[in-house]
Amino acid sequence: MLPFKSIIKLDRKSNAPLYIQLSNEIIKLITAGVITVETKLPGSRKMGELLGISRRTIILAYEELEAQGWIDIKPNQGAYVHADIPIAKKYPLEQSLQRKDNPLQESLFNYSHEFDYLEHYTPPDFSKIKYIFDTGYPDVRIGPMKELSNSFYRVLTRRHARQIMNYASDFRGHILLREELVQYLSQTRGIKVSLDNIIITRGSLMAFTAIFQILLDHGDKVVVGDVSFKVANNIIKIAGGEILTVPVDEYGLDLDALEILCSKQKIRAVFVMPHHHHPTTVTLSADRRMRLLLLAQKYRFAIIEDDYDYDFHYSHSPILPMASTDHEGVVIYVGSFSKTIAPGLRMGFIVAPTDFINELARLSRFMDVHGNTALEKAIGYLFQEGIIRRHLKKSLKEYRNRRDLFCELLQNKLGDHISFKIPEGGLATWVHFKENIPLPLLREKAIQNGLLISRTVFQDLNGKDLNAIRMGFASLNEEELVKAIGLLRKSINDLEEQR
Amino acid sequence: MLPFKSIIKLDRKSNAPLYIQLSNEIIKLITAGVITVETKLPGSRKMGELLGISRRTIILAYEELEAQGWIDIKPNQGAYVHADIPIAKKYPLEQSLQRKDNPLQESLFNYSHEFDYLEHYTPPDFSKIKYIFDTGYPDVRIGPMKELSNSFYRVLTRRHARQIMNYASDFRGHILLREELVQYLSQTRGIKVSLDNIIITRGSLMAFTAIFQILLDHGDKVVVGDVSFKVANNIIKIAGGEILTVPVDEYGLDLDALEILCSKQKIRAVFVMPHHHHPTTVTLSADRRMRLLLLAQKYRFAIIEDDYDYDFHYSHSPILPMASTDHEGVVIYVGSFSKTIAPGLRMGFIVAPTDFINELARLSRFMDVHGNTALEKAIGYLFQEGIIRRHLKKSLKEYRNRRDLFCELLQNKLGDHISFKIPEGGLATWVHFKENIPLPLLREKAIQNGLLISRTVFQDLNGKDLNAIRMGFASLNEEELVKAIGLLRKSINDLEEQR
Repeated sequence: MLPFKSIIKLDRKSNAPLYIQLSNEIIKLITAGVITVETKLPGSRKMGELLGISRRTIILAYEELEAQGWIDIKPNQGAYVHADIPIAKKYPLEQSLQRKDNPLQESLFNYSHEFDYLEHYTPPDFSKIKYIFDTGYPDVRIGPMKELSNSFYRVLTRRHARQIMNYASDFRGHILLREELVQYLSQTRGIKVSLDNIIITRGSLMAFTAIFQILLDHGDKVVVGDVSFKVANNIIKIAGGEILTVPVDEYGLDLDALEILCSKQKIRAVFVMPHHHHPTTVTLSADRRMRLLLLAQKYRFAIIEDDYDYDFHYSHSPILPMASTDHEGVVIYVGSFSKTIAPGLRMGFIVAPTDFINELARLSRFMDVHGNTALEKAIGYLFQEGIIRRHLKKSLKEYRNRRDLFCELLQNKLGDHISFKIPEGGLATWVHFKENIPLPLLREKAIQNGLLISRTVFQDLNGKDLNAIRMGFASLNEEELVKAIGLLRKSINDLEEQR
Repeated sequence: MLPFKSIIKLDRKSNAPLYIQLSNEIIKLITAGVITVETKLPGSRKMGELLGISRRTIILAYEELEAQGWIDIKPNQGAYVHADIPIAKKYPLEQSLQRKDNPLQESLFNYSHEFDYLEHYTPPDFSKIKYIFDTGYPDVRIGPMKELSNSFYRVLTRRHARQIMNYASDFRGHILLREELVQYLSQTRGIKVSLDNIIITRGSLMAFTAIFQILLDHGDKVVVGDVSFKVANNIIKIAGGEILTVPVDEYGLDLDALEILCSKQKIRAVFVMPHHHHPTTVTLSADRRMRLLLLAQKYRFAIIEDDYDYDFHYSHSPILPMASTDHEGVVIYVGSFSKTIAPGLRMGFIVAPTDFINELARLSRFMDVHGNTALEKAIGYLFQEGIIRRHLKKSLKEYRNRRDLFCELLQNKLGDHISFKIPEGGLATWVHFKENIPLPLLREKAIQNGLLISRTVFQDLNGKDLNAIRMGFASLNEEELVKAIGLLRKSINDLEEQR
């Protein structure tokens, strides 16, 4: 007889009834091939003694096993493992449960090589990191989190409004948030649209994914800047697009180069970040914007306008988004609450002609249906009550101070090793390091000192490493900026000493 | 001179300063071609008089326009529209702003026909609907919404924990929720896994999307039941998969038919809902589960196990999921909080071998990065505090009562026109209507009477309409069930009278 006492594990502190635990353990033994087909199980009295539990519990467990079809209880004979259960290969039980060591597994999930260009995922280890220079995130600590939770509470606890936690019938997002966006877009950036021109997305990346899935057939060509936002480039590739590039200078995309491309082949879309190009932070000039719109009409391509940090500008008010001067419906505008409220919301939006929005809604049904509607409504209230407006005013002031301090520190502490321009807006600075400070090495040193910097490598047209990164200044307060720059300075010193 | 007074619209109640409004209006006129290149704008005094606002405001607006590059201010001469701005085609302003009426637009977004098989999106009109027989949703009114909002508040307002609203560094979801899931999966369904085997998704549809994107190369074959969950079928097609079917009988998928398919061609994956098949609600028997696992090992296909409503079973405790008896790592298990908590959460999870989870995390980076981590942590607390367990206990009891009443009503009020089996678990019943009640017509009548029923049409292998639908009973309370069945009876009567 099997040593049931030692191989069946019951937990008396668990919430699961003992008889359910027991029947589950027996199922494990059957499926692992430890108890084989047509084996007779010990009688209930005997099994009870073996395991030190009541006979009644054993009977309940056997009844459960019979009801589920694992055993047959034959009158006056006892309980037998069901004859029709296919026999599993016999494994030592302990080993078989460790699924990740299983040799079969790797060959089974011999993944498609389609995504080989994407960086592999490794769970992060931030245990030694004290400060992070991100690539331009907001400081979520100054965000309206208390107001957000109150607003969420208000949405969820109004009894008649509970249906908001059911599936939404409108895949475009909660109507209150869309209504508020109609006003906000008009007031802050001159975009005049209706409710039907807006869909809420899970951040701007989800927006890009959906847009390019709809827009692109396999091999369709999309033009981006050289250099451009790498994550978006990958999304374009995943959607089957082919990427062509044009140079980016201090006024943004080179449109002469674009027109040459257009004259040679069909271009389906141009991906552009006119307000602050990622990574270099330059602004597309007003005349280029107009020309880009005219090129889109002439060559019939779509403009995907990523306006991720429109709300942050420190000198004059910014040039309006292209979507606001688009009279032909050629612009698909993508905005996000990641910088204005918090990245962790995972909420953004798309503004586009009605029929394109309806296409997006149609595809949403097969991606994630819709977002968290209750949270969308809660954000809607924050707009309605002016909380977002006040928060933006406050954070703009704060981030301007941080930008000034950061650039001053860059100049004073690292000026001999870097070059940069003071950004007129946004939450990041594009910083070139001199050749004798190779960024991958600096990054290693910095991690040793408790500082994390971006690992994204940008290269020029000839494949030469630009040795430049985007450094965000908004998510660290003044004290933290001083300390983080200190650690960066120390890391540069360490690197130089090592030579 | 242009009639500036009538074409420039300023809103004195708006939050935007007047000079910004004015400069934006002028930009509109320039980009629409109403004010052409090198045109001289009226002097500040003159313009102020025309518009009835102060000269100071006009000067500020012109300075803004110059800073943005739209005009040049020439000393002692005045303000001129910048010479380099490309001239837009001239449109009457009002018309050009109505983007959706624009004739160019449709031809530009001549969408790929790739998704032609997907139903088009039309914004819903529920204005006349009083009751809905959904396809098996929970009653969100009895959910722990107050506890959820309190928990969310707790997460968001702990100052040191604010970083949770930043981008998460771990794309697999918040660690507390994954830890709680490890326990919950073990206690409720015998699935023993570690933290590294779990990723949180935006509902189970997002899970399917990610899984099939990774698993499938174009043309890879996926087997589903005939009939099966249509939304999942579409997701498989979108990911490039080809669908093959095997019959579904009262014990689930026909595995003889599956083995014949496997012997003829490479099968990449089998999509199965063992607990309650969608739409027919049948349970895959214990012996077939074992055999399916063995077939997966033999023919090396992945099993995608969709376990959307495991927590609801009304007689004996359910057969454990296949993932709990999978010793080879062939099962990718998909669960959801849509039925256990609320669909509006848009939260689900995948359990799979570590390397597959890491592949999913890698792809997430290019879909939506991750979910709302704060909300994930809030749900984690609900598990930790036993709130989910108590909620499930309460709702199980409630839904059993509703099932009993619903089936009794079906039998007593509609018994002459339908056939169905009382479901042993889940939140829906599979109801066949007699041929003289065609469902599309009944649906129309029902809507007229204020009742919405599912419009999904299922067909048998020969393309014949099954004239059957899934009818959910859990989201309506007893009073509502009585009234909704009454409306359905009335709709049948209306249909018969019409003949």
